[in-house]
Amino acid sequence: MSTDAPFLLACQRQPTPFTPIWIMRQAGRYLPEYRAVRERFTFLELCKTPEAATEVTVQPIDIVGTDAAILFADILLILESLELGLEFSPGDGPSLKRPIRSPEDVSSMPRPDVRDSLSYVFETIRQVRAALAGRVPLIGFAGAPFTLASYAIEGGGSRNYLATKRFLLEHPEAWNDLMGRLVDATVDYLGGQVDAGAQALQIFDSWVGHLGPDDYRTSVLPHMQNLFSRLPKSVPVIHFGTGTSGLLELMAAGGGDVIGLDWRIPLSEGWRRIGHDRAVQGNLDPAILFAPFPVIRQKVRALLAESDGRPGHIANLGHGVMPNTPVDGVRCLVDSVHEFSANT
Amino acid sequence: MSTDAPFLLACQRQPTPFTPIWIMRQAGRYLPEYRAVRERFTFLELCKTPEAATEVTVQPIDIVGTDAAILFADILLILESLELGLEFSPGDGPSLKRPIRSPEDVSSMPRPDVRDSLSYVFETIRQVRAALAGRVPLIGFAGAPFTLASYAIEGGGSRNYLATKRFLLEHPEAWNDLMGRLVDATVDYLGGQVDAGAQALQIFDSWVGHLGPDDYRTSVLPHMQNLFSRLPKSVPVIHFGTGTSGLLELMAAGGGDVIGLDWRIPLSEGWRRIGHDRAVQGNLDPAILFAPFPVIRQKVRALLAESDGRPGHIANLGHGVMPNTPVDGVRCLVDSVHEFSANT
Repeated sequence: MSTDAPFLLACQRQPTPFTPIWIMRQAGRYLPEYRAVRERFTFLELCKTPEAATEVTVQPIDIVGTDAAILFADILLILESLELGLEFSPGDGPSLKRPIRSPEDVSSMPRPDVRDSLSYVFETIRQVRAALAGRVPLIGFAGAPFTLASYAIEGGGSRNYLATKRFLLEHPEAWNDLMGRLVDATVDYLGGQVDAGAQALQIFDSWVGHLGPDDYRTSVLPHMQNLFSRLPKSVPVIHFGTGTSGLLELMAAGGGDVIGLDWRIPLSEGWRRIGHDRAVQGNLDPAILFAPFPVIRQKVRALLAESDGRPGHIANLGHGVMPNTPVDGVRCLVDSVHEFSANT
Repeated sequence: MSTDAPFLLACQRQPTPFTPIWIMRQAGRYLPEYRAVRERFTFLELCKTPEAATEVTVQPIDIVGTDAAILFADILLILESLELGLEFSPGDGPSLKRPIRSPEDVSSMPRPDVRDSLSYVFETIRQVRAALAGRVPLIGFAGAPFTLASYAIEGGGSRNYLATKRFLLEHPEAWNDLMGRLVDATVDYLGGQVDAGAQALQIFDSWVGHLGPDDYRTSVLPHMQNLFSRLPKSVPVIHFGTGTSGLLELMAAGGGDVIGLDWRIPLSEGWRRIGHDRAVQGNLDPAILFAPFPVIRQKVRALLAESDGRPGHIANLGHGVMPNTPVDGVRCLVDSVHEFSANT
């Protein structure tokens, strides 16, 4: 039944009765219902409590009507099993108490049993599938190795990713070792997610757009090809990044059934550069959800025109929905995509 | 004499004996000699003391050997005359005590006499020209109206420019009024810089890469065309931004004899998209200056190969040199560009 879901059909570039839409961070702080659950847990506790994680995963399906659910979790959970001292501080975002500073820090990293240490994620997936009862498909996800490595080396977020770039330029062997270890762990993790019931996967390379094409080709692309070649073939995989207008061909070479685009390139141009043998996802600016409804609707019309009627477009923002976004703006987005794309 | 300077020839796509290079923020904190001067002044005092501003403007010519000097100043000085309460706090960067929050804040803005309030900049230019004595040309500069407006509205730097985007989507008339006022002031300011002796100009649209192409076309492009059409025709003008891989054709349509590129697009591809009837500037990642010299030299070789022997490439980083950059790395960059590009 759910293999006929518009979202899954679009991932395979099959015709759909309307353009499917989901929204990055749709299970998140802009929803009062999410904030109510979140008050009872720290962020990490919420990730590790399958009943509560299931509740917030399903909320946006009921409240804003998106066409896919995405697992509530965090790309950095996998770093916890690498013993880097992951912490989420209120207001400050994630930080690592023991970031990677040297090649020795890489070679001495543990080789964790991800299927054991992240078993709570698989339990959430099973509970979400039961709660959704086939209404919409469930997307699992993981961070891409570059983005995970950048957190591991920077010790948190960054404006310029200088420590990461220095590491990959100064210590290419240790860099490749680190990336290989992250790929190995991610393959296990995503395999477990699919075994537990994830019906699609998204790889978040959120910060790779800070790299130039030469550094991507040398230091990232081989690892992405390794990763994608080892993922389950039974589900579609979305390859996402931001600020990647200069990297799209290389990201497509890395892999993915669907390539994510952000708002800094027209969808039509991005799709042409990626190749029409892939599906695309995106690409509205999250800021437009703060605009008056007529502006949102005009932006949706313009976005839908960019696909030129070609199957294989999954509507989404180009990055996560922002915490203070009006829920009514999100509803306007979802409803407009459905209304303007419906085959009549 | 100085019209034969390689930098000025390259701006006009004339052949040069070697590829000229200068470096954004070359007069800055990575230099111990700059930090020594800076200890005696606050940042604003340094900008407003022509003798000291002249000293730091000339320093990199002597110390690292770049082929052009750039005025020591700040793009936000022009906002001071708009009475927004500009402050530079140590460590925190610039902030405005009275940012623009409403259309009324725009319509009530003063129309300043920029040539009067920024006369200290013109005095610095005169002193720098005397101090340089024709050794290398002097570049003047200003912020582009979008980047200035973003500071005026955000009240400082931003990660996502949400307030700016909301303002331009919600209040398009007030946005256009604000941009027009900023263009008017900038035309006066840059005209004064050229009258005082600036031999080239750079327009810094540092943060415009956060906009998508549609918003650029609607909300920025007409103002850039207005600005460029009113600048002095006697000197070349460089049009710079970062994260602009999706905006290059539109930026070229905006204007500029030289278009700046950052490292997130190959120089050859960026140049092709801009058109070979313009010169280009860039585009190395500032992070490479922290790498071992052989890596820097390899990156320089790769960059120079991107121009395919075509006149009109000015070597530079894709953004400002970072504060902790090793001076020896900067020297290695400048020397490698000269060595590898020299006609022998």
